[in-house]
Amino acid sequence: MGSGNDFKKVSAHCLVKPGERADIASRSARFDAGLDDDAYSAALLAHHLERIADLEYKLYAEGKQSLLVVLQAMDAGGKDGAIRNVLGVANPNSCRVTAFKAPSSEELDHDFLWRVHKATPRKGEIGVFNRSHYEDVLIVRVRELVPKAVWEKRYQHINDFERLLADSGTKIVKCFLHISKDEQKERFEKRLEDPRKQWKANPVDFEERKRWDAYMEAYEDAINQCSTPWAPWYVVPADKKWFRNIVVAEVIADALEAIDPRFPPPSFDVRKAKID
Amino acid sequence: MGSGNDFKKVSAHCLVKPGERADIASRSARFDAGLDDDAYSAALLAHHLERIADLEYKLYAEGKQSLLVVLQAMDAGGKDGAIRNVLGVANPNSCRVTAFKAPSSEELDHDFLWRVHKATPRKGEIGVFNRSHYEDVLIVRVRELVPKAVWEKRYQHINDFERLLADSGTKIVKCFLHISKDEQKERFEKRLEDPRKQWKANPVDFEERKRWDAYMEAYEDAINQCSTPWAPWYVVPADKKWFRNIVVAEVIADALEAIDPRFPPPSFDVRKAKID
Repeated sequence: MGSGNDFKKVSAHCLVKPGERADIASRSARFDAGLDDDAYSAALLAHHLERIADLEYKLYAEGKQSLLVVLQAMDAGGKDGAIRNVLGVANPNSCRVTAFKAPSSEELDHDFLWRVHKATPRKGEIGVFNRSHYEDVLIVRVRELVPKAVWEKRYQHINDFERLLADSGTKIVKCFLHISKDEQKERFEKRLEDPRKQWKANPVDFEERKRWDAYMEAYEDAINQCSTPWAPWYVVPADKKWFRNIVVAEVIADALEAIDPRFPPPSFDVRKAKID
Repeated sequence: MGSGNDFKKVSAHCLVKPGERADIASRSARFDAGLDDDAYSAALLAHHLERIADLEYKLYAEGKQSLLVVLQAMDAGGKDGAIRNVLGVANPNSCRVTAFKAPSSEELDHDFLWRVHKATPRKGEIGVFNRSHYEDVLIVRVRELVPKAVWEKRYQHINDFERLLADSGTKIVKCFLHISKDEQKERFEKRLEDPRKQWKANPVDFEERKRWDAYMEAYEDAINQCSTPWAPWYVVPADKKWFRNIVVAEVIADALEAIDPRFPPPSFDVRKAKID
């Protein structure tokens, strides 16, 4: 595999460097790095998907490291679509998606990382979190489900937890799929019109939308406090689905390339193997 | 989606009807229903994959039923390949593969179905077992890991367990990927030659191969005793990978079609929805 130097790189713009501010408000959700939804972009996405498929197979074969991809977004932000379009290329044998919904009463009887820890990827696997422990400093904060004294300690808990994973062989990348409030409205309206999408529409989401600014503030804090060298955040411009897919694919392919998984040497002398 | 009446159906031949014998020994692992590895076969596979993608999306949207696909085979029988080539089309959001390896000590501290029960699919999901509870009447029986008095009761335990799942909204199909002993040898030899496949080669498998006849006897009994109306077994001719993929895809697509998942109606009046 080439390192893709012949293709334009777009994710560096999206990385929130540890110690710097995300400044979500100043970022355009329609940013596309000057690309268009054309043949070049399709080839760019295909290039990254090919890299992912190749590297994932080596990750699985090696069986020593894992990758954790955390996806967060406002409703209709494109988490499901990104997973389908990017991770769809992954081998179902070694890619596991976990969707975190409202916690069960058993989960609430434990600390907020308990259910998350159980879902972390095994060695050799790509684990994808469709929503994650970040909800515990997002909706939980916005809706005041726990007192501030509780949630404000969680940024540190999260950083410590993610460091444990990273120190134990799990590469972590986190993507906030950033859509504009207008784009969300359009997508909600499309859901209402399309019989194949109506099931996704939920009046609760329309209510939640009224708290947009509070959510953006909560995202800003979460990203600023939790973009670490061992688990960086990317703010992915996501109004244009085709560009969002390219960025997410590049982030994942680059992360896999960085940990450089390799086929393990056979544990025995293959020339002397005897098959009767 | 059409019901595929325009395409040749091949899986009926593979079904072991409840009460009848599998008679594996009399079945050719090279059977291909007169098809060739050509454009027609490629279109046939694509047709089933399209059906799976469409029906799976409805299954997920509906959120009321699930599908469990059990895959068993001798080493190199093609379980990983079938999953990659057939379930690769599935949405990673709603398709979960569980590989069962040698049980952990915690798992051994429970009954043999404990770990399996935990891995059953949620409503809306396709669950795939890469190996399964059947290992407890296959390798466990052949290697005498528990006394006969223990394993011989398990066929009934399995049927009862699968009936519980079926009665609770889980459609179950089970595929034994049937390769010949010669084909296994060829595949083992290819693994030894290919640096991208050497990691899969394991001298333990070459030893296990010496117990081929005992395994076939164990498979014959497991399939005869556990092909039930609520969880049928298919013996899939698997020497030809392209044909194996077609059969597995047809079995899965037909199973999804049989439970007829549908988009749920919206829970509210979409015309009155208000998005600010």
